[in-house]
Amino acid sequence: MPCGGQGRCGRCAVVVEEGAVRRRSTQRLSPEDVAAGYALACQTTIEGDVVVLIPPQERIERRLKESKRVARIALPFAYDRHEQPLRKYSITLPPPSLQDQTDDWSRLQRELARCYNLRGIQASLPVLRKLGRALREGDWTATVVIELDAWDRPEGPPRLIDVLPGERLESLWAAAVDIGTTTNHVWLVDMMSGEVLSQQADYNGQIARGEDVISRIIYASKGNGLEELQRLVVGTLNRLLAQAAQERGISTDEIYKVVVAGNSTMIHLFTAISPESIRLMPFVTAVNQVPTFPAREIGLAVNPEATVDCLPGIASYVGADITAGVVSSGMCSTQDLTLFVDIGTNGEMVLGDCTWLIACACSAGPAFEGAGVVHGMRATAGAIEEVWINPQDYEATYRVIGDEKPRGLCGSGLISLLSEMFTAGVVDKSGNINLGLRTKRVRRGTHGPEYVVAWAEESATGEDIVITAVDIDNLMRAKAAIYAGFSVLARSVGLSLSEVGQVLIGGAFGQYLNVRNAIQIGLLPDKPFDCFQFMGNTSVRGAYMALLSREMRRRVTEVAQMMTYLELSADNTFFDEFNAALFLPHTDLSQFPSVAAMMKG
Amino acid sequence: MPCGGQGRCGRCAVVVEEGAVRRRSTQRLSPEDVAAGYALACQTTIEGDVVVLIPPQERIERRLKESKRVARIALPFAYDRHEQPLRKYSITLPPPSLQDQTDDWSRLQRELARCYNLRGIQASLPVLRKLGRALREGDWTATVVIELDAWDRPEGPPRLIDVLPGERLESLWAAAVDIGTTTNHVWLVDMMSGEVLSQQADYNGQIARGEDVISRIIYASKGNGLEELQRLVVGTLNRLLAQAAQERGISTDEIYKVVVAGNSTMIHLFTAISPESIRLMPFVTAVNQVPTFPAREIGLAVNPEATVDCLPGIASYVGADITAGVVSSGMCSTQDLTLFVDIGTNGEMVLGDCTWLIACACSAGPAFEGAGVVHGMRATAGAIEEVWINPQDYEATYRVIGDEKPRGLCGSGLISLLSEMFTAGVVDKSGNINLGLRTKRVRRGTHGPEYVVAWAEESATGEDIVITAVDIDNLMRAKAAIYAGFSVLARSVGLSLSEVGQVLIGGAFGQYLNVRNAIQIGLLPDKPFDCFQFMGNTSVRGAYMALLSREMRRRVTEVAQMMTYLELSADNTFFDEFNAALFLPHTDLSQFPSVAAMMKG
Repeated sequence: MPCGGQGRCGRCAVVVEEGAVRRRSTQRLSPEDVAAGYALACQTTIEGDVVVLIPPQERIERRLKESKRVARIALPFAYDRHEQPLRKYSITLPPPSLQDQTDDWSRLQRELARCYNLRGIQASLPVLRKLGRALREGDWTATVVIELDAWDRPEGPPRLIDVLPGERLESLWAAAVDIGTTTNHVWLVDMMSGEVLSQQADYNGQIARGEDVISRIIYASKGNGLEELQRLVVGTLNRLLAQAAQERGISTDEIYKVVVAGNSTMIHLFTAISPESIRLMPFVTAVNQVPTFPAREIGLAVNPEATVDCLPGIASYVGADITAGVVSSGMCSTQDLTLFVDIGTNGEMVLGDCTWLIACACSAGPAFEGAGVVHGMRATAGAIEEVWINPQDYEATYRVIGDEKPRGLCGSGLISLLSEMFTAGVVDKSGNINLGLRTKRVRRGTHGPEYVVAWAEESATGEDIVITAVDIDNLMRAKAAIYAGFSVLARSVGLSLSEVGQVLIGGAFGQYLNVRNAIQIGLLPDKPFDCFQFMGNTSVRGAYMALLSREMRRRVTEVAQMMTYLELSADNTFFDEFNAALFLPHTDLSQFPSVAAMMKG
Repeated sequence: MPCGGQGRCGRCAVVVEEGAVRRRSTQRLSPEDVAAGYALACQTTIEGDVVVLIPPQERIERRLKESKRVARIALPFAYDRHEQPLRKYSITLPPPSLQDQTDDWSRLQRELARCYNLRGIQASLPVLRKLGRALREGDWTATVVIELDAWDRPEGPPRLIDVLPGERLESLWAAAVDIGTTTNHVWLVDMMSGEVLSQQADYNGQIARGEDVISRIIYASKGNGLEELQRLVVGTLNRLLAQAAQERGISTDEIYKVVVAGNSTMIHLFTAISPESIRLMPFVTAVNQVPTFPAREIGLAVNPEATVDCLPGIASYVGADITAGVVSSGMCSTQDLTLFVDIGTNGEMVLGDCTWLIACACSAGPAFEGAGVVHGMRATAGAIEEVWINPQDYEATYRVIGDEKPRGLCGSGLISLLSEMFTAGVVDKSGNINLGLRTKRVRRGTHGPEYVVAWAEESATGEDIVITAVDIDNLMRAKAAIYAGFSVLARSVGLSLSEVGQVLIGGAFGQYLNVRNAIQIGLLPDKPFDCFQFMGNTSVRGAYMALLSREMRRRVTEVAQMMTYLELSADNTFFDEFNAALFLPHTDLSQFPSVAAMMKG
């Protein structure tokens, strides 16, 4: 339910083959669809026994799980385990006697002060509950896990996280987490070496309750929706943490710290803080910097006392995923004028260098994620990810993820297709399909003019895979919004996009993107190819770096503090820039010299 | 089950009227009892349908509930509400706008810093979850409840406990709690005036799982016993808190802080920290000073974020009830050499003045609480609380609690009875009953020599109420243990009990005690009557004072730090002192000049 059960997205359409149902809304279905038995599952009441067919297209693929190999993550600094606050100490206490009846907790504090100069250690009830048994089981030798300080209390006091019987100094584990609206990532980190020793990813369990953040916020506002969404995402993370622990043969109880990045809505839902105000004017979050808390408070399946540190966001639509990305991409340390962009349902972008940063977010709509497009789909097996159109006969060839028969078009496929249609002349610079071309691929369909990318006999669905005029319109609006964001951002600081030295692309979107195509449709600024860097998941990488180093954690906070947020809905130049960008590649061709040259040639 | 279901106390005896049972142990039952159908409920397995009669004697009276009037508690200081850290502030925030999209939490922090100079405020997730709605419901005017500092972090930072919509400055509530092994007390305190506006008391719900601390520790060590005992005591406190709140027409959510006193075992059980090591050599606690924690962590039904502050104890058998008592009785501020004593199943005693304190505890056994004595009972309705014996004809008269027919003898009744038997010559100085007396009241019973206090026709049970030679032996051992404690304590610092200027008696025991009787049997040192002060419940009073004043809270910690603990089981003079005290009043009559004079006269 991409729309969260509001009857708006049409993605839960099913075929009622037998029996009576009552359709509350059919706004996303044509009369022909309804006649054929289609109904929106979220809008339909069953009135008796029914037989329902679930169309295969949207069954979720688990392609993410395929790549499980462990990558060595390159760091911009050498790992020094004393630069992070998690510690293990072993200690042997003099046993109590009738001459020294000091209580267990004071005895441990006394000896930690004497041996390691640790003072004023704090402990919670759950740790103290383990203390007596651990000390006696280990015959008065114990290993303590201590966090010396936290980002919000750099002076300490140290916090006792665990106490284990005997000497257990061989390992120390922590985790970096990215909570994406679509996908969650968990990296299990060996704090002895600083290495990532397991990487796990899976779809966010909330997806079935709404595909974008707005749908989730609406879902959270009803009944126990907020608690349910929290339970779902914590459930996903717990599964990933358990898989990672199993892969390394450890218990999840041995994971003693978790650093979390994610967009503002995801962080709110993760902590069960209502995100309601995020979607309402004037779009403020409840909390940009959530205080640290012990994992037990939200049921995260690591050590119950493990500190959970959610990185800070700066605004409703520029969250911790972006501050983490700015730090992990190196943007905050460069002297080059840099544009950082993370394109998903929302496009978040940051302009600046090591001395200043300005950010904005614009709603691109879900077109780049394959939603709101007739044959759109996510970038999973069966998705056309790249297209080539022969400018002579307008015939199409394409590449499909997983080398299967095609079932639809994902975001990069749509961008590639639009770019090819433009350069081959299938659409004009306004995006209108040229119905006069001599090819069967251009035709009038039920949704108006359309271009056939794959014929029914080639496709996995047995239907022609097409892109319609309405789809193109959606894509044009999406790319215009992103580019207008870039333009307003640059203009707001008196710069031009031509002055940008490098463009850093974060997020999953960049993985399959063809930069030349993206420039040709005017989605990305017209730069030489080597100005672009695809950074992968900069959010989890930022969480990982903040986990490994106090300095990096401090940088994320500094970035959040120094970054200026530009609210586009309060900016009266955005609409003009948006309209100017509603052309291929743009009204102002001087901004796209390489495309202009190609068009002439 | 005073003994916690070990078959040792005989208090769970029931009559099996029909059906088959298997008795595992009958050690507390006579052959006649067994023949009459008696069985120990805790030691008996039912082997089919049975009819069981529960004898009426031990049905718990709820006499405590009768006295519900609110007493004005006299304080040794004038209450100044700025001397305690709990605060309410009202604040009006500028609402967010597209020009000021600061998140709710930063906005509140910013304005609290601006208006009240409050900086670095910490908040937990549960409070932050309430923030957005509270601010908007109150149209950006809110009332915050803040604890500025805590005993263990006098420098702060301040902690946000609650946020309420609108201006709600009219009241501020907190509670002082005493967790006794037998009885729990809750005082509801209006922090605006410092007054106690409701006092509630009831039996500790753990009583059914063992009547003394040792039985409870054993119970806690089995299965989920620890969690069960915690649930029981928290359940009792929650009922008392609800009653107090209802009496003042408030919600328990408005109670924002709780200070707790109690003996070490009770504090361990309250926080579900295993008390196991308390009963095993070398008798150490897990934690003497439990860190503060929010009420939600143990399910205490006050505001979930209310700080729970358990006062510190100093040893397994000298707990927070004693440190609180030393402070609230004024012992820690006096220049007079003072003896503080709290007599229950254990007798805890402290000797010293404002510059030094030494404490010990001795196991008196349960005789003074009416247990381990054939016709013993607790100080509830039907208990004989004072006895007079005519030295001519050895006839007895007595006073009964509640002016009912007598059902047994409570602690003060037993002390009074023993004293009268001694001064009338029914027993000699060794406590032996003089079988040669011309009275029907002295006779040989099934348990050996005995004295009849009340005849069957006068009693509520239809049986003679007697004291046996075995009972007297138990009482002699109990009083000898207490007095030996006093002696060892004084001797350990090179003083004599005759130098003690005042004796402060805390706890419920003192309420019904006749000092002259207690001196005559050698339980209390021989002093003029005006040296003795009965302080009532010094434990809850200490919690109350620590709640009202940072200075008083600091004093409790200082007392815990300065007090020396003397372990009697490691002291080789205790046994000698105990043996010397196994006489009426004592082997060394020079220590009891007034009794010696009476014996002569």
